[in-house]
Formats: sequence, structure tokens, C-alpha cells
Amino acid sequence: MVGGGQGALIGGVHRIAARMDDRFELVAGSFSSQPERNRATARELGVNDARCYADYQALLAGEAEHEDGAEVVAIVTPNHLHFPMALACLEAGKHVICEKPMTLGVDEAQQLAQAVKRSGRRFVLMHNYVGYPLVQHARELVARGELGRLRSVHVEYVQEWLSEAPGADNRQAAWRLDPARAGSAGCLGDIGVHAFHLAQFISGQRVSEVSAELFTAVAGRELDDNVHALLRFAGGARGMLWASQTSPGFENGLSIRVVGEKASLRWAQETPNELHFAPLDGPAQRLTRRDDRLGADVARGIRIPGGHPEGFLEAFANLYQALADDLEGTEMTWLPGVDDGVDGMRFIAATLASSRAAGTWTPLQDKGNQP
Amino acid sequence: MVGGGQGALIGGVHRIAARMDDRFELVAGSFSSQPERNRATARELGVNDARCYADYQALLAGEAEHEDGAEVVAIVTPNHLHFPMALACLEAGKHVICEKPMTLGVDEAQQLAQAVKRSGRRFVLMHNYVGYPLVQHARELVARGELGRLRSVHVEYVQEWLSEAPGADNRQAAWRLDPARAGSAGCLGDIGVHAFHLAQFISGQRVSEVSAELFTAVAGRELDDNVHALLRFAGGARGMLWASQTSPGFENGLSIRVVGEKASLRWAQETPNELHFAPLDGPAQRLTRRDDRLGADVARGIRIPGGHPEGFLEAFANLYQALADDLEGTEMTWLPGVDDGVDGMRFIAATLASSRAAGTWTPLQDKGNQP
Amino acid sequence: MVGGGQGALIGGVHRIAARMDDRFELVAGSFSSQPERNRATARELGVNDARCYADYQALLAGEAEHEDGAEVVAIVTPNHLHFPMALACLEAGKHVICEKPMTLGVDEAQQLAQAVKRSGRRFVLMHNYVGYPLVQHARELVARGELGRLRSVHVEYVQEWLSEAPGADNRQAAWRLDPARAGSAGCLGDIGVHAFHLAQFISGQRVSEVSAELFTAVAGRELDDNVHALLRFAGGARGMLWASQTSPGFENGLSIRVVGEKASLRWAQETPNELHFAPLDGPAQRLTRRDDRLGADVARGIRIPGGHPEGFLEAFANLYQALADDLEGTEMTWLPGVDDGVDGMRFIAATLASSRAAGTWTPLQDKGNQP
Amino acid sequence: MVGGGQGALIGGVHRIAARMDDRFELVAGSFSSQPERNRATARELGVNDARCYADYQALLAGEAEHEDGAEVVAIVTPNHLHFPMALACLEAGKHVICEKPMTLGVDEAQQLAQAVKRSGRRFVLMHNYVGYPLVQHARELVARGELGRLRSVHVEYVQEWLSEAPGADNRQAAWRLDPARAGSAGCLGDIGVHAFHLAQFISGQRVSEVSAELFTAVAGRELDDNVHALLRFAGGARGMLWASQTSPGFENGLSIRVVGEKASLRWAQETPNELHFAPLDGPAQRLTRRDDRLGADVARGIRIPGGHPEGFLEAFANLYQALADDLEGTEMTWLPGVDDGVDGMRFIAATLASSRAAGTWTPLQDKGNQP
Repeated sequence: MVGGGQGALIGGVHRIAARMDDRFELVAGSFSSQPERNRATARELGVNDARCYADYQALLAGEAEHEDGAEVVAIVTPNHLHFPMALACLEAGKHVICEKPMTLGVDEAQQLAQAVKRSGRRFVLMHNYVGYPLVQHARELVARGELGRLRSVHVEYVQEWLSEAPGADNRQAAWRLDPARAGSAGCLGDIGVHAFHLAQFISGQRVSEVSAELFTAVAGRELDDNVHALLRFAGGARGMLWASQTSPGFENGLSIRVVGEKASLRWAQETPNELHFAPLDGPAQRLTRRDDRLGADVARGIRIPGGHPEGFLEAFANLYQALADDLEGTEMTWLPGVDDGVDGMRFIAATLASSRAAGTWTPLQDKGNQP
Repeated sequence: MVGGGQGALIGGVHRIAARMDDRFELVAGSFSSQPERNRATARELGVNDARCYADYQALLAGEAEHEDGAEVVAIVTPNHLHFPMALACLEAGKHVICEKPMTLGVDEAQQLAQAVKRSGRRFVLMHNYVGYPLVQHARELVARGELGRLRSVHVEYVQEWLSEAPGADNRQAAWRLDPARAGSAGCLGDIGVHAFHLAQFISGQRVSEVSAELFTAVAGRELDDNVHALLRFAGGARGMLWASQTSPGFENGLSIRVVGEKASLRWAQETPNELHFAPLDGPAQRLTRRDDRLGADVARGIRIPGGHPEGFLEAFANLYQALADDLEGTEMTWLPGVDDGVDGMRFIAATLASSRAAGTWTPLQDKGNQP
Repeated sequence: MVGGGQGALIGGVHRIAARMDDRFELVAGSFSSQPERNRATARELGVNDARCYADYQALLAGEAEHEDGAEVVAIVTPNHLHFPMALACLEAGKHVICEKPMTLGVDEAQQLAQAVKRSGRRFVLMHNYVGYPLVQHARELVARGELGRLRSVHVEYVQEWLSEAPGADNRQAAWRLDPARAGSAGCLGDIGVHAFHLAQFISGQRVSEVSAELFTAVAGRELDDNVHALLRFAGGARGMLWASQTSPGFENGLSIRVVGEKASLRWAQETPNELHFAPLDGPAQRLTRRDDRLGADVARGIRIPGGHPEGFLEAFANLYQALADDLEGTEMTWLPGVDDGVDGMRFIAATLASSRAAGTWTPLQDKGNQP
Repeated sequence: MVGGGQGALIGGVHRIAARMDDRFELVAGSFSSQPERNRATARELGVNDARCYADYQALLAGEAEHEDGAEVVAIVTPNHLHFPMALACLEAGKHVICEKPMTLGVDEAQQLAQAVKRSGRRFVLMHNYVGYPLVQHARELVARGELGRLRSVHVEYVQEWLSEAPGADNRQAAWRLDPARAGSAGCLGDIGVHAFHLAQFISGQRVSEVSAELFTAVAGRELDDNVHALLRFAGGARGMLWASQTSPGFENGLSIRVVGEKASLRWAQETPNELHFAPLDGPAQRLTRRDDRLGADVARGIRIPGGHPEGFLEAFANLYQALADDLEGTEMTWLPGVDDGVDGMRFIAATLASSRAAGTWTPLQDKGNQP
């Protein structure tokens, strides 16, 4: 693991997720750039002092010496470090689990995509919300045509935690609001891109154009903390996307509605164990993990019966579990990878460009509208 | 009453609403352009044959002869007739209750606004959804500053009933999809304008600019059946608006969320007896009609105690009741009037213009972007 | 109308209900035993002074003089007056709409049942909650066997409004807590009997035995304000019933769940426009008034399309409308009548008896366990 | 671990729970009485062949030989084995985590309680549902007096999974329906006792008397599959308890409502991340894990921020985590222990006795109403 020192939230989540199904063991890490904090974290986690490294270069060098050196590296640092670290890990022959956003721009993303192909290694991008079984079920219902041709997709990711200017001691907030470490996108890159990925994942359609407005609700911030966007999908559907980190009353409000000609569905992350499916020709249905129609891949991610709620950690762990399955030979096509990361960076770039251009529809593309 | 012959939905709703509080009596009408249907409706409603008129001109002429002729005319016809009828009624000294959209364009709307001012009569535009007590309470909470400065407004009005090409016998659908009778806006004019009005009503801010995409989901339709729009408000808030009549699973899904710096609120028409208020610094609250903070005007619209659900008809009746109060001297400032109608027509015009102009932000204005 | 003077709640509700469908006209009344209040109420309601009577005897005598005298009398007084008034009205040839509980004991109830049979007149007992279309739909789903053999019925009616000792000026509370006017049952007679009736209505089974505990939560009250009961039904189902008027947070919480071998359903009065149906072999369904399976009788009670919420007043009005239909020749078998009232009084008697006898199972019967 | 061979549900849940916070290591086990299945399970779990034992006696003997032998034994077998195993483990100086119901009768329970006291070891009874942070928060709100004096407690645990006679191959169902392995209580002992414990846990009051009816909905079963009960609490509150395993549409429906003179609260296991608190003098509140009033002990059981749902496994793991804390010196008073088990057995005995005695109120006591 790189990153995830004491006090960091997401590193701990990765560690629980890795442990849950007993398929991974934490053997080495570079947890913090502060030596003391690095060592203390290692000790707390039972990582041998000798395998607690000063930085990722040292980690890759050190682990190369071990016969049973780390096989997979989890990158859980601030955004600007994802790209160089992932590149180095791949080149060193490691599989990579990487936090999002994958890189700071489309160019880097494309370079990384090529590096993944060259390396023959697995690259998992931590769009963890697609680990929820009912998200995967939603995707399958769409793919099987149970909604008919899609008409519109409405996705939102709304939080309250940056509603006020945070205190200087809030480590989580600090780097997310600093362009040097977060990139040119604030809320857009932090959570907007999750919403974007969820919309593509369930709809099975890629976004082709965006018309957007970014704005900053809290005075003094350099980066956007709100995103309002209209979407067009390559498959003909239209969409709307709302992301916000300054909306009181919303804790972690990621939700989606998909409307097709025959039925619509909706799912919300805060009540992840129910999926609402409403056909035109019958009553609305509340699907749960006991649904008869669950596919085999989806069922692999269910640890306990319906009615026993599963949550964020289980969904997160499903990406680790699927990577383990994949490494052992069962291909897991739903796992978010480097191409999803490229799409995400294209989305960020196009959204920034549209917002600057008075909301004009802007295509998602490889070149020309880089942030 | 003009319009509302047998088989029409909204005319019957107006009649129940007018009767509910025993403040109005139906004394005359021109219910249908088909003579037989006109007479049959009158008979069913207990309207004297002599006061069942062939058209609105005859009605105004006939009622002028009666010492106790009709004082208020309710106009419940297809859209294209609202303007000439309202104008004639006002000139004949009648108060008017008019269905929305008020007119077919901004010019007509402005003419009507002047006519209302000249006439000294009351003009109520049937934005009936603001008749719900908790909608009015929401407006008051915003006005009192309980949300702080507003950041964003998210409103939607989503239906399923036009999800498929309707049969030829569907009278409701037929005129709404016919540009000659509905105007240049389909879903936008039919329900989008309700959503727009609700957003302005609760936020207390007028929309200044719109960036929109209209589209038609069902092949063969001439008018839009879906609206996706981004909004900017004069007071600084931003917004999103979704209207659709082709979304399976949505019966009459009008709902709104208003986000301020201190709190957010949400309300949905299908569960109108609860208003959710979520402050940044405390738990989310479920407000009902028993809330201590209800203003006196709001309380007038409540007929039965909390826990005894009130619905669509009661909210609708509140506009009739408020008009009666107003005519008896208690000013009812919340009643939607001709200025709201002008705003609505400006919104329709700007939305059509923005959609044609690749989603560019387009100001709501008196001239220049007429439909 | 007898009762329903200014300040009374339920009288006004009856009047709106009677007016809603324009099938009844209020022509006479004895609204209050206080002459001034009686006259003021009549004037406010537009009832001719000459037909505003000092008491019900005067009303019956006076109306007998009119060629078009009142045909139906609505009795909306405190409980102890229901019996003598209803008896007199029936003997005078009037149809009767009577508030519940019907009488103060089983004997009176049986006498009244005989009087109804002798008179050939209609007697409607105001178990208004069965006027909700989805309650009637629930009953039909059970009757058609969609739940299979019933296993259990769970009904509750929980309120908060008597949570504290009410002030002396609370007219509603005062008579309900006074044994002389309310009878020996407090909460049991006021709302418990509604829950009991709803359970019998939907299940289609009569309660045969009860095991109960009555208790008084607020010190100083003579009558019960809480009911906990276990039920046995003649058809083999078991049940539980909770009624309370001292439970903070419950406004008018009447709800029911019915469990069968093939499916269960649940409905709650505060969200009356949805009925939840959960089969063993498929996903849970949310039924609304648009459900395809609605019977014709149920559909008569629907005034506006699904998604436009109907509430308490509409459900209440459905009993008036059904009486009008019935009087015009369309038999309305679901209307609660005098036999339901007899059952209710048997339930009250048996519940009081069981509570006094340490919770022993006690049969509902005609004699022997009178309150 | 004793029990929990391949195919068993609850053993796997214990293992995930033990692993989640990295405070326990699985070092030995006797997973099945079938030697092949026992060994296969051990291998799958990475337990050394030498520490995979034929039965619990062998396990205790074998581990005594190890310098770092197992310190804690988790007992996850069918009910009838809990008592002898727990006794032996305690005598061998092990701490015990035991599934419920603790024993088959009150006598055994009391013997076990004495054995725990004698041993000086920790005994955790797996009433896992109190591991949910918001259940603990509910308990604290009651204890702090925020509800005032309690009036009533309504608890239910309703499932559908035994709605039909299960096939012979359903290992879970088979032993639960067999008196020899499950004891004299079916649904009552399996889930009724969870509901009972939850009611005592949150209310802070012990149940003193019960009036109950047990019944069997599915023909051919020897044990109850449904429980209807009225409760009296030592502190003056009354209650109702419903448990069922034959109710279609209920997956794992454990829920509770607690009514006090000042407020009520409700919580449901299927949506465990919200707690509803409704005061008499203000709007209903939806509390989440972000609530300001959370106590320090409660907060220890929260791994991720509000809005990121936690579920069944996390709550389960909280009992393991609390045991670890406790063993390391931080006393965890909320952990369910042997006295809760004694209470549970008293409840089972009294409920069986009351049901046989026509529902008469029956005290919970040490002797005299043994099953």
C-alpha cells in the first residue's frame, strides 16, 4: 500500500476490504511521507519494519528483493500522485489498485492506458460504488433489455461535508481543495467522476457530449464545489448530472435513475440493498438481493442473505474479491479499469471546457479540450 | 365555466374545488363546442339550460343580462383559447381563473398583464401545486432565512402517461400534442412551466437565464415530450429542471429540493403532507401540517389535523378559497397571477431558444427569443 | 345534521364530504345544545333559521312537516347520544349516517340492529377509513385469494394528541375522557374500534376471541388511553391490535398488515395512496390507484388519476357517495352498517372483560361480557 | 471455532466479523462432526491440519498443549450443544462467544451463569443486533431520559424463509424445526429471543410478565413458527412482541418502537443507518451516525462516516471488537452476556407456559414454568 497513513480515511477502508474475504495480506507499505507517521502506521498494522518504505520508489526496489514480494499495490494518495506511482508499479510488474480520479488529465490517462496494455498487469480503478450487488443487477437488467431503449439517465452525487470553509486541520478537505494536489477539478474530480462512471456503468452507454456549469458556493475556494451538467450518450439517451459538496442534509447522496421506454429503475447508495424497478405495464417493484433474476457474477458479491443489510465496506471489498478471482483465472469484466479512467478524464476535461464556453455542448474527446 | 365538458378531467377538478368550501356556486357555463355535449354537461351539473351557452362570447353577453350574473369565470379549455377568452372576460368585468400555460407566447402574456391592470379584476393562474400548505410553508421557511443564502434548486415534474404514442381516442393527449392547440411547447408548456413556477415560488427568486435541451422520446411527435434544463436565478442560486411525460413509473412526479448554505428542504407532490428540512447542524426533520412554525396564511388552507392526509383536490381548492378570501378583502399575496404567467411564457420562450442554440445560456426576457 | 356546531371537528368533515360530489344538500340541523351556538352555526352554513332546531326531536318533528323534509340524518354528537338519536331517526323514516362507536353497549347495538331491519332504511356507520380506494382494493385482493389462506393480521391505530392531560378548554378531549359521555371504553371505543373494523373489513374474517390489556398512561384518567390485544379470527387467522392516544410522534397512525401463506400486504392511513403487496415468489410491489386489478366498485371512489394524491376527505366522502349510489339503486355492499356496529360493541365488551380477567382469551358474544 | 463447517451460514459470518478489525486470528477448530467436511473446512480456512479437531473435547485438550493455544472459543453449533460446550470451554479457561439461544432451559442457563462467575472468563452471547451503533444510540437516548418515562415498547422479528415446508436438503431449516436439536421453542427460541433482548436492551427495563400465544402456521411442524405476545416490564412499560418465520415479504424484519411520555423512537434492522426520534413538542427527526449526541462507546463501533452504509457484518463485528477491547482492559458494559442468556431462557419458558394457559399473564422466573 502506498498512502493511507494514520488519520487517512480511505486507506483504512482499503485494508478492511482487502481483509474481509481473506484473499490478500498486507505485507509492505509506504504509508506517509512523514517518517514517524509512516513507521507508526506500519507498526499498528503489523507490517514488518523492514518492509515499511520511505517512498514508493523504495517500496518497489525493496519488494523486488523479496522472493514473495508484494504482487498488488494499492495507491491511496492524493490525486496528483496517482499517475507517476501507477506507472512505476506497472513497470515493476505489479498489479495496481488505484484511487480515482486516475490522473490529472487526459494525456496522462492515455499514457497510463498504454502502460497497462504493455505491462500485461491488472489495473483496477477504485470506482467502488459499482461493487454493490444491486448496481450490478441494475446494469444487467438494462443489458437484458428489461427497460427497453433508454431515454434518460439522472445521476447525482451530493454531499454536505464541504458546506463551510473547513478548518486548517481538516486533512481530507485540505488537499481536495488545493489545485496543486487535486488537479483543476474540485467536486467534479472528487465525486462527479464517480457519478459519471455509475451512469455509464449501468446504462451501458458512453457519454458523448456534455453541457455544464461549474460553480463555487463557498467564497474563497479556487476549485468548483458544485457541478450541474446535461449529458448526451452515444446510444441516444440524454442525461442530467448533479454533483455537490456544499449541500446541507446530504451525507453521501449518490443516486441514479434510468428511464427506458418500457420501465425505469432507481437506486440510492444510502439504501443500497434495494433497487426500484417500475415497468410501464405493472406495479413498481422493490428488488432486493433475493431477486430471482440475479446473475451469477452478481451473486458472488453477496455474503449474507437478503434482509441482512450489506454496506459500503462489502461493496468496496467486492472489487478486491473480484480482482482476486480475476487473478485466479475467473474473468471479471465488470471491474472498473484503465479505460474507465480515460473516460473519466475526458469527462472532466469536457465539463470544464463547456462550463467555460457558456454551457455549449462539448464532445468528450482525446484532444483539444484538456483542463 | 368555459370548457370542462363531459370526459374532460380538469373541469371536474375545478368544480369539486369550487364546491369544497361552499364559497362559489356554478351558475352558468359553456362546456363544449359540441352542442349536445354542452347541454348534457349542463344538465348533469344542474346548470339551468338558459345559462348553458354556445360559446364564451354568448356566455359573457348572456350573463351581462342577469342581475346576479356570474362574477368569476373559470377557463379550462385547451391552451390556445386561454388568451382570447381571458381578455374578453376581463373586459366584461369578470374575475378570471385560468388554466396554464396562460397564453401561447410572451407578447400575448404581456397584453394580458396590461388588461388585468386596466380591469381592476382578479386574475388567478392555476398553478395549483402551490396550494399545498407545505409548499407555502417551504416558501416561508426560505423567506425567513432558515436555509440561509440559497445555493441550488432542483425541480422536476415527471410523468409516464405519454410514454407510448396514445390512441386516437385519448382526448387529453390529442390536444396536448397538437401544436395548433398546445403552442410550440409540449411537455415544456404542459408541466415544465409548473415546475418552473414552483421553483420561483419557493425560492423567492426569479429565473434569469436558462441552458436547455428539449427532446422527443416518442417517434412521430411534433412537440417536445422531455425537458432538461440548467437554471440561473437572479438572486444567485443555480438550478436544474427536468420535465418528462414519457418516463415509466412516474405517475405525477412533481418534486423540488432547495439547498441553502444553512439547510436544505425537499417536497414531493405525491406525498404532499410531509416537508423534509435538513439543517447542517442537526438531524433531518420531517415537518407536517402540525408544525409550530406554520404561518397564519398557510394555516387557512388546512381543513383537517395533521395525520389526516390532504391531497390534490384540497390544494386545488385552496386557490378557490384564497380567491374568495381575496374578493372579500383579505389580501392573498401568494395567489399565482398574471405576472407569474408572463414569467412562465418568458421561460418557455428562452428554453426553446436555448435548446435551438446548442444549449447556450439564454436570458429570460420580454423580446427577442419568442417561440 | 345533529351535532357539529362551531368548533367541532367532525361535523365540518361530514359537511365537506357530503358536498364534494354534489349528491346531498344540507337543509336542516340541530347543531348544538347551546341555542346561540346552534343558530350561529346554521347561519354560517346557510341553513334557514326555520330549519335550525333546538334538539333532534324538534328536528324530526319539524322536518316531518316539510314536503321535501330531510331524507338522511347525519349524527355527529358525543357517543352516548348516538343510540337514542339513531333509533328516533329510523322510526321517523330517515336514513341515518352515524358516527362510531355506534352505541354504549352490546344490548343497545342489538336493539338498533333490529330497528334498522324493521325500518327498511339505510344505516351507515362512519367507519370512514374503509372509504379509501386502496383499503377496498386490499379487501378484494384477499377475497380473490391472492394472499392464500390468512395467517395473521396486525393492525394499529396510534395517536399522540392525548399524550398529556389536556387543558379544560379542549372540547374534543373533554367528552372523550368522560365515562358519562364516552362510555366505559376510552381509546378502545374512540379509535380501537376503527382498527378492529379495518381488520375485519380487509381480512374478510370476524374476530372470535380476544386477549387484551387496557391501560392508562396519563395519571388521573378514568378511561383507558392504550389498548394491547391479541386476536383470534373465526377463519383461523391470528392477530394483534395496538391502539394508543398517548404516543408522541404518531399523528393519526392507523395501519394494517395482513399475512397470508402466499403473500402479505400493508397499508397505512397517512400514506393512503399506496398499498404494498409482497408475494413469496417475487419482488414486493407498490400498488397505486392506477393498478390494473382494481374492481369497478373501488374505481367509483377515485376522482382523480394516480399520482394526484387523494386524502382523508375524499375517503370520507366515498361513504356519502356510496350511500347516494345505494339509495339510487346500486347496491354498495362494502358500506359499513349496523351489523358492523354490533360487532364493534361485542369487541369492546370482550376486550374490557379480558383485560379485567388477567388477559384470558374471551369470546366475542351477545351476552355475558357486557361493559 | 466449534461448528461452522462448509455450507453453514453463521460460522462464516463469525469468521468475517473476527477478521474485520484484525483483532483475532483463527488458529484451531472443530468445524463438523463429519470428518471429511471438518478437514475440508479447515483447509479452506488455512487452519493447520494438526489443529483441526474431531470434537470440542479434543479441541480443548489439544489447544492446552499449545503455548499459544486458542484464547477464545466461538460456539456456532445447533442449540442443544451450546450448553455442554460452553461449560467445558469455561472450565478449560477459555473465553467464550456463544450463539443464541444460550441453552435449552432456565436450569442450564443458571448453571452456566454460575460457571461464568466461577471461571473469571468473558462470555459473550451473540445477540448481534445490539452491535448496530444506532441501536446503542437508542439505548443511550432512553437512558438519558430523552423519551421521558416509557409507556410502551413494540418489537417484532418477522421472516418469510420458513413460509413453506422446507425441502429435506435445507440444513439450516432442518435442525431449527427439530425439538431434539432446537429445544421446545421454534421461532420463539430462534428469533423471538432476539426481539426480546433488543426490547430489554434499548428500554433498559426487564420484562416481568408475558401473555402469549404460540402457533404453527405450516402444517406438520412440531414447533411454533409464530409468536404473538403482550409484555409487562418491571419499570412500568407495557409491550407487544411479534415473531414469525412464515410471513411472505419479510426478509429479516427485526424492528422496534419505543414510546415514552416525551418522545418515541423507531429503528428497523433492514435500514440500520437511521434512527427515528419523534418528540411531542417538535418535528420528527431522522438520526444518523453523524448525530452529535453519539456517545464515545457507540462511536467506537463506527468505521466509516455517515452516509456510507454499514450493515449486518459490521454490527456483528462490533461484538468481536468490543470483546477485544474488553480483554485489553476497556470495559464494554453493553456486551450481551450470560445474564442476558438467563433472561432469554426465562422469557422462553414463561411464553410457552402462558400460551398453554390460555394467555394468562405469566411471570418470568427462575423456577416453576420450565419448558
